[in-house]
Amino acid sequence: MSPSPDRAARSRANGHGAAVVWLTGLPASGKTTIARAVEAALFGRAVQIYVLDGDVLRRGLCRDLGFSPADRTENIRRAGELAALFADAGFVVLVAFISPTAADRHAARHAASGVSFIEVFVDCPLAECQHRDPKNLYQRARAGEIAHLTGVSAPYQAPKNPEVHLHTDTTPVAECAARIIRHLELGGVLPP
Amino acid sequence: MSPSPDRAARSRANGHGAAVVWLTGLPASGKTTIARAVEAALFGRAVQIYVLDGDVLRRGLCRDLGFSPADRTENIRRAGELAALFADAGFVVLVAFISPTAADRHAARHAASGVSFIEVFVDCPLAECQHRDPKNLYQRARAGEIAHLTGVSAPYQAPKNPEVHLHTDTTPVAECAARIIRHLELGGVLPP
Repeated sequence: MSPSPDRAARSRANGHGAAVVWLTGLPASGKTTIARAVEAALFGRAVQIYVLDGDVLRRGLCRDLGFSPADRTENIRRAGELAALFADAGFVVLVAFISPTAADRHAARHAASGVSFIEVFVDCPLAECQHRDPKNLYQRARAGEIAHLTGVSAPYQAPKNPEVHLHTDTTPVAECAARIIRHLELGGVLPP
Repeated sequence: MSPSPDRAARSRANGHGAAVVWLTGLPASGKTTIARAVEAALFGRAVQIYVLDGDVLRRGLCRDLGFSPADRTENIRRAGELAALFADAGFVVLVAFISPTAADRHAARHAASGVSFIEVFVDCPLAECQHRDPKNLYQRARAGEIAHLTGVSAPYQAPKNPEVHLHTDTTPVAECAARIIRHLELGGVLPP
């Protein structure tokens, strides 16, 4: 029996490397929008690419979890382990999670050890996020319907040394996506 | 912005469909060996293929879980949700789990709704499994070191209508793998 294909064999077969692209930022900062733009662009280049969205995971793998600090940490832990499996399978996997604490993000990086881990700080001023509010999260927090909303009633620890730092209040989505793709090319994950 | 690639788009790009191949059977019946043989054969045919192994998941995604009945069910639930995500990403994903109860396997099938779910009964007489015992599980159960070993001190509910039924005491590994691949071809998941 042949051995299982390892990461190098999958990389040769796919024509590109694997990576975890971890987008962190306040609610409504633009994480998922940017992840979907990267996905669409790279799918068009025949890259094996997938987005792990927090809302999708909450309906499936993590539907046993609530929003207590411990459950939020467990939610992010599972996303990190999941991303590591996708990367092991040869994917460039994008994870769009608020992931407010440096410790949780560090754990995700650790889970992905052996593949490129690209932390993307999706940086947007709180006032702008509150103005956008596409899911009415900030409105509901003001109305007392959400107890712990990151940026309002729960802390957000901004990344100190992210691989990519995007300012989504001033940079268009397409340019944000292009910056992530450029980082993957320069790092050798994708061919130029 | 382009829409996210759906399953049909991924299938077109990969040249094959997605599926969850769920191998169930007693400890040491041959599940992982067969899964790895299918993986090696299909990787050689440029199929996006991945094996979810119970032991690997226990060290990562499911490392918070023990071996109580509730934890075993949760372990299988997560494997089912994980397999569904891999299939959504375009993979043929093989899951090698004892998965002793029909209810847990049904839940996995439900999680994968929308893609082919192929239950493979890896059928091997208990005496033969006990004779093989590559991980010394049966030996340790006899010595009282493992409390609930499926087939010995915990029940195994054999599938009633599996898509593929393999008799691994009499059928060589390569032929078992070929039968699964043939099923995928006949079902239109793989090109002939």
